[in-house]
Amino acid sequence: MKDATASRIVATRILGLDPGLRITGFGVIDKLGSQLRYVASGCIKTRDGELPGRLKTLLDGVREVVATYSPDQVAVEKVFVNVNPQSTLLLGQARGAVICGAVSCDLPVHEYTALQVKQAVVGYGKASKEQVQHMVQRLLTLDGSPGADAADALACAICHAHGGQGTPGGLVGRRRAGRILVAPEPR
Amino acid sequence: MKDATASRIVATRILGLDPGLRITGFGVIDKLGSQLRYVASGCIKTRDGELPGRLKTLLDGVREVVATYSPDQVAVEKVFVNVNPQSTLLLGQARGAVICGAVSCDLPVHEYTALQVKQAVVGYGKASKEQVQHMVQRLLTLDGSPGADAADALACAICHAHGGQGTPGGLVGRRRAGRILVAPEPR
Repeated sequence: MKDATASRIVATRILGLDPGLRITGFGVIDKLGSQLRYVASGCIKTRDGELPGRLKTLLDGVREVVATYSPDQVAVEKVFVNVNPQSTLLLGQARGAVICGAVSCDLPVHEYTALQVKQAVVGYGKASKEQVQHMVQRLLTLDGSPGADAADALACAICHAHGGQGTPGGLVGRRRAGRILVAPEPR
Repeated sequence: MKDATASRIVATRILGLDPGLRITGFGVIDKLGSQLRYVASGCIKTRDGELPGRLKTLLDGVREVVATYSPDQVAVEKVFVNVNPQSTLLLGQARGAVICGAVSCDLPVHEYTALQVKQAVVGYGKASKEQVQHMVQRLLTLDGSPGADAADALACAICHAHGGQGTPGGLVGRRRAGRILVAPEPR
């Protein structure tokens, strides 16, 4: 009992979010010192229809995830600017709703670019989605591969756990005496 | 006392919102049959800083306006897609937060394009900001001109009061027996 309390004190629970109007991925991890532990992941889906209703689904969905897993901090991926301005606008609105879900619960929200996330997780800013999924599975010692949206959200949480820097464990792309310690399996 | 209750029953209170990351305008009007009555207007300003904090200011600001004036319906202007994709994304996020402020209070949100708003208020889709301000002042019989942001928000509320159609009172551009009844003063 004493141990459990002690570990809860040092653990930081991080909620990672990958915003999208149709699908917003979420991933929850615990950070205990340099150790990361998977807690949960999934996605919030919105149905076709009027925009305000879809934004409400995202807002309520994030608030529900927060209520369920009680994270201490939130990390959100900075969405990329689409070629189509209308898509960019829709994505922006979805991201606004997702961030509002977190800030309305008085949680601190940190933002990371896809480049930062990929560098933190794979060690390479131009890593593929499959490489990100693979490394998330490895870093969190998951039995199976998380879905693409959940993987991106977990990757964002991992990036935040590492202070937005490269993987401290140096899992990929980090060389010690000229030798790559761990490399992703390319597809 | 009886009269006040009766008039409250038929009146619909509409909150108009003109979203912006730096300044979001709001305007509240009552619709009693074909009559419109000004209630309040103003704007929610955000300070420079991290995006999540600014979005929280917008979310909380809209919720505060809703708590203060208890509108029945909300009308939001559809933002225009900027030439700069980064600006479009920022504006989209602000609009997402503003809509979340309304839907989190379980209010129905209706969207109108700038064209619809201008047509409803001035009778001309390409009307200038000054023409909109002028007509808002006239339609709501205000002593002074509302600020530009508040005017756009009030115009959006008026547009919704008219069902997103042209001004039913036919104030501008509507001809009766070939005579323009009321014309905006061009600048």
